[in-house]
Amino acid sequence: MAGNSFGKIFKLTTFGESHGAAIGGIIDGCPAGLSLDFETINTEMQRRKPGQSSIVTQRKEEDKVKFLSGIFEGKTTGMPIGFVIENTDHKSQDYSHIKDVYRPSHADYTYDKKYGIRDYRGGGRSSARETACRVVAGAIAKQLLQNIKITAYVSSVGEMELKKNYSEINFSEIEKNPVRCPDAEMASKMEDYIKSIRKEGDTVGGTVTCVIQNVPIGLGEPVFDKLHAELGKAMLSINAVKGFEYGSGFAGTVMKGSEHNDIFNEDGSTKSNHSGGIQGGISNGEDIYFKVAFKPVATIMRKQETIDSKGNKAEAEGKGRHDPCVVPRAVPIVEAMAALVMADFYLLNKTSRL
Amino acid sequence: MAGNSFGKIFKLTTFGESHGAAIGGIIDGCPAGLSLDFETINTEMQRRKPGQSSIVTQRKEEDKVKFLSGIFEGKTTGMPIGFVIENTDHKSQDYSHIKDVYRPSHADYTYDKKYGIRDYRGGGRSSARETACRVVAGAIAKQLLQNIKITAYVSSVGEMELKKNYSEINFSEIEKNPVRCPDAEMASKMEDYIKSIRKEGDTVGGTVTCVIQNVPIGLGEPVFDKLHAELGKAMLSINAVKGFEYGSGFAGTVMKGSEHNDIFNEDGSTKSNHSGGIQGGISNGEDIYFKVAFKPVATIMRKQETIDSKGNKAEAEGKGRHDPCVVPRAVPIVEAMAALVMADFYLLNKTSRL
Amino acid sequence: MAGNSFGKIFKLTTFGESHGAAIGGIIDGCPAGLSLDFETINTEMQRRKPGQSSIVTQRKEEDKVKFLSGIFEGKTTGMPIGFVIENTDHKSQDYSHIKDVYRPSHADYTYDKKYGIRDYRGGGRSSARETACRVVAGAIAKQLLQNIKITAYVSSVGEMELKKNYSEINFSEIEKNPVRCPDAEMASKMEDYIKSIRKEGDTVGGTVTCVIQNVPIGLGEPVFDKLHAELGKAMLSINAVKGFEYGSGFAGTVMKGSEHNDIFNEDGSTKSNHSGGIQGGISNGEDIYFKVAFKPVATIMRKQETIDSKGNKAEAEGKGRHDPCVVPRAVPIVEAMAALVMADFYLLNKTSRL
Amino acid sequence: MAGNSFGKIFKLTTFGESHGAAIGGIIDGCPAGLSLDFETINTEMQRRKPGQSSIVTQRKEEDKVKFLSGIFEGKTTGMPIGFVIENTDHKSQDYSHIKDVYRPSHADYTYDKKYGIRDYRGGGRSSARETACRVVAGAIAKQLLQNIKITAYVSSVGEMELKKNYSEINFSEIEKNPVRCPDAEMASKMEDYIKSIRKEGDTVGGTVTCVIQNVPIGLGEPVFDKLHAELGKAMLSINAVKGFEYGSGFAGTVMKGSEHNDIFNEDGSTKSNHSGGIQGGISNGEDIYFKVAFKPVATIMRKQETIDSKGNKAEAEGKGRHDPCVVPRAVPIVEAMAALVMADFYLLNKTSRL
Repeated sequence: MAGNSFGKIFKLTTFGESHGAAIGGIIDGCPAGLSLDFETINTEMQRRKPGQSSIVTQRKEEDKVKFLSGIFEGKTTGMPIGFVIENTDHKSQDYSHIKDVYRPSHADYTYDKKYGIRDYRGGGRSSARETACRVVAGAIAKQLLQNIKITAYVSSVGEMELKKNYSEINFSEIEKNPVRCPDAEMASKMEDYIKSIRKEGDTVGGTVTCVIQNVPIGLGEPVFDKLHAELGKAMLSINAVKGFEYGSGFAGTVMKGSEHNDIFNEDGSTKSNHSGGIQGGISNGEDIYFKVAFKPVATIMRKQETIDSKGNKAEAEGKGRHDPCVVPRAVPIVEAMAALVMADFYLLNKTSRL
Repeated sequence: MAGNSFGKIFKLTTFGESHGAAIGGIIDGCPAGLSLDFETINTEMQRRKPGQSSIVTQRKEEDKVKFLSGIFEGKTTGMPIGFVIENTDHKSQDYSHIKDVYRPSHADYTYDKKYGIRDYRGGGRSSARETACRVVAGAIAKQLLQNIKITAYVSSVGEMELKKNYSEINFSEIEKNPVRCPDAEMASKMEDYIKSIRKEGDTVGGTVTCVIQNVPIGLGEPVFDKLHAELGKAMLSINAVKGFEYGSGFAGTVMKGSEHNDIFNEDGSTKSNHSGGIQGGISNGEDIYFKVAFKPVATIMRKQETIDSKGNKAEAEGKGRHDPCVVPRAVPIVEAMAALVMADFYLLNKTSRL
Repeated sequence: MAGNSFGKIFKLTTFGESHGAAIGGIIDGCPAGLSLDFETINTEMQRRKPGQSSIVTQRKEEDKVKFLSGIFEGKTTGMPIGFVIENTDHKSQDYSHIKDVYRPSHADYTYDKKYGIRDYRGGGRSSARETACRVVAGAIAKQLLQNIKITAYVSSVGEMELKKNYSEINFSEIEKNPVRCPDAEMASKMEDYIKSIRKEGDTVGGTVTCVIQNVPIGLGEPVFDKLHAELGKAMLSINAVKGFEYGSGFAGTVMKGSEHNDIFNEDGSTKSNHSGGIQGGISNGEDIYFKVAFKPVATIMRKQETIDSKGNKAEAEGKGRHDPCVVPRAVPIVEAMAALVMADFYLLNKTSRL
Repeated sequence: MAGNSFGKIFKLTTFGESHGAAIGGIIDGCPAGLSLDFETINTEMQRRKPGQSSIVTQRKEEDKVKFLSGIFEGKTTGMPIGFVIENTDHKSQDYSHIKDVYRPSHADYTYDKKYGIRDYRGGGRSSARETACRVVAGAIAKQLLQNIKITAYVSSVGEMELKKNYSEINFSEIEKNPVRCPDAEMASKMEDYIKSIRKEGDTVGGTVTCVIQNVPIGLGEPVFDKLHAELGKAMLSINAVKGFEYGSGFAGTVMKGSEHNDIFNEDGSTKSNHSGGIQGGISNGEDIYFKVAFKPVATIMRKQETIDSKGNKAEAEGKGRHDPCVVPRAVPIVEAMAALVMADFYLLNKTSRL
């Protein structure tokens, strides 16, 4: 109810603030008998963690996950999987300057008004640090899904946009550059741009595209819990996300039905895929693809006029180590959330027929 | 779990197929003591129903809601509100031609594969007829929310787009034309365009913009159940929706942080509102605004190549009375879903502090 | 949340007051492809309905269920099953005398204090009439469970107790007498006793025993959602229930571990069954059995001192047609609730292993 | 869904096995602004922990809870409260003898059949060690409830029963003896009896009575989530519980309505309290009282015939340090679960009226 759980059958609940002792979570409902590859989980964590390249924040978090339960001799037991990630780099002193100041476009003001109290250190619960827990759970969900392949990449940084359709892209290029844009030339331009933005003490937004392949037909539920509605919610729950579109998306609104309709082949596949792999809220076996919009990071290295908790004028200025552009590190988070949605519907679908 | 419920505290569960005896639902968790204005509920129903103007489907459904429980002497009692809407215009014979045919970009194929059985008459459960139940519940939610004002309107039809910001718009113009576009000139063009599209036997998509005003600060929950994430899910659960963006949305991705950040006034309001009234997933008191993308209606009045349930080639052709463009009738549905989200968070927020 | 839903996967939500237009419900999550036997559903309804024998209330309710959705050509479609039962015998005038009076040991006082408003006619939502909806859903759940056999019977009326263990009982005797006690002699005594109690204008309590046979191993979840915990909640949710015990129950508290432990046979079955078919919250394949305690009906045909809604002294006296003893009609309700619990865990168990 | 969560608004999710690295949990939905008294939480933990007296298990667990989030400067922030309790005394070697053996009346067999894998060390997840997490959450719930007073005590051990009504009891006597029976003489007899049972290598059951005082009117929900139904489920979810009754309970079944009905005083209180403080599922302001039946502990210090996982005959014999009677240590667990139920309904009730 209070917003810290995601999923119905495969359910993740997370806890933890940016600068508390630890963050962590519980994955409840993971089926028994899954052999976990801990190496892969760690790889996902490394993709998200700060300090991995020169264009992301230089904070140093080990982001080492410690599993406390639900796993026995390398396999899931069907019991809840509890885990913690210690906050090793929490320099609380860095944040005394924002104790009473509401940073523009952050959650400081709304948390204070809603709860009457907030842990101001590093943004507390509203910090994107929380997404590390999503990546842990997503990495397990991915292993549960086996053949289903979930791939995300950066499709734009500011106005620099990769115009290619996902089907023209070689996914193995994604991790070859720090931007995670699967086009070497564009990636290089984006990287330069992010660096120049950082020099200005500013930040910039971007988009992440995600593709889900080898999806079994029948995932998703009618009416309110349509597959794309849950994917949308999952993506919009990620910090800094402002929009979501799947299949033809906003561009589909200017098409005619005669152009937009996906004509069937005799095997049930479709000639085009404006539907984005989902019809009536349920997967049809075609590739699912969607795009997620991220706003520019709110913390900038410049002085901004603002107010304090008493309504007096104040100044805010980012200190320390922040991301000039969030999308490169958002890629594994988008994948993780997609995996959580798919795992949940995959399990739920086992109950849909006699 | 099976996707027919929406909301946590103020919870709507719906049932019913397009051509069964009736559709209906249960609203559970509506607080006791709310005096209901049935006239207003009926007005909302009339805004959604077929046959209201020359540019929408000419099907004739009375769409008269019958309340069966939870209301006593005009007030809610805190008990579940059961209601039914009879299907008076269900001409099942109209649909025998699609019994074994999968219509392109409809849910026929996915329902059949997922469930092994489907009520093919009029699309069964996947028909947008189900949204009438959402409008009933939304009309009650609106009354619960009192001062919060929820207004939606058509912001584009195909490539015809109302470029004005919502703040420049006179909302009282919305219902003055059948398109529900609050600009007489643009509305007239859109109307002509929809008529020409219909003549071609084709359909077209569009967008609906929604604005929520007088929102108390503090609605929404952190992390997974952010206010905009639930709004996004709510909108994406409406038939034919392909995308959702709030505040600066996709356009915000090309902005810099120094432009995008909303600077506070001393009273806690903000000078700009790229945040769309939500920061960290929680309402900040500014106007909430978002845009919803609708694809062109899949049923077109032209022959389309398709397959039947045995994988043989077949033909599909829309018969009867269908909407050439869904957005005018989608306006009250968007408002209804927004009201359900707001009512739910409004009630939940009562539990957030000691 | 507001207490009108039961179950997680196979989920029943009910609505309706005793004297409104109708009661009804929605069953969401029933798997597709189940051929329904409507005759059997009707039989269950007849077992619960008033007026079926001389020892129960002589109210006349047809209790005819009308299914509105989720069923196509006799089979479930996986869509929500909406249903209504009209209130044909609601004589509202009968209840004007209790409009402002709080009947002792009824819900009048607590509803008024909690909600500030109540539908006083016939007890409104707190009336046991609501259980008719449970019987509808339970009858479908029973059909879903196929081989699992759920049998309840009256094991005591007041101090008259059937001392036999369930294993000594011929279940086919249960429906042969109006008390539903499967021992002709004891049933006859109970019947006479109930009649004498009724003559006194009084009421009496009793117990119902329920046995669930042919249970697959593995139903139930660890920790909070133990199979017996959900069965207990289900039973305690029935009007007038004051206690629940399963397996050895309260009698087991005076036993020693060496007597109480159920020793395994080599096939995994157990020599004794003090565990009542459940170990660690999960079914072990042995018979599940439990007992449910019902208090005497609160409505008696005698004058009782009480208060009105203003705190003034008043008198309450049952009028019309009430049950002198609730247990005979409770038998099908106990079975229905047991079926709902079992169906829910049966479906959930499909997700417990890879 | 998988049974590791309890509560709707004030929600506890737990994880952890008896012999893993740690157990722990997340409390989600605790309102912001509650000043926590950590001393009191620790006191509750000490009441439950092993080794506290000569009549309970002599295992040594520190049971020191470490809070990781959701608390800032001593107050709850409205964010999820994550906590861990390390397993300091897990001697895994002690359990190799039960690796392949199914102990009678334990969960070994059912877990193995349901999940195909189990952590056999110390009973794994089915161990009562998990209840330490409930006590943590219950101690916080108690603080939230402020004036509501929850008191449990041992009312019987085997056939030794404290016949007094709770109203005749001096609650301050409860903690003065290791049995937690608030009658010095009876407590002494019970203690001797437990010691003699232990000498025999055997175990014995008992009952715990719980009283909830100063309850606001209006807690609980109609129909399925009646206050007593949730209390019943809460109690039945505790390891070794076989039965639950509230108010008049099973004894109420032999009463007549004219005796059982609770007559109102003019202030709305009642002259008698057979209803146990709950009418129609909702608290009426009178004391809530209920009794919980615990079976004898399954682990006995004697050889028992049993089978192994291959269906071969085997022997089981308790080793190490086990409770000869569970009820003294169950007292704080019963209170904790009662507190969780009350806190949940207390918060939910804030949404029941306009």
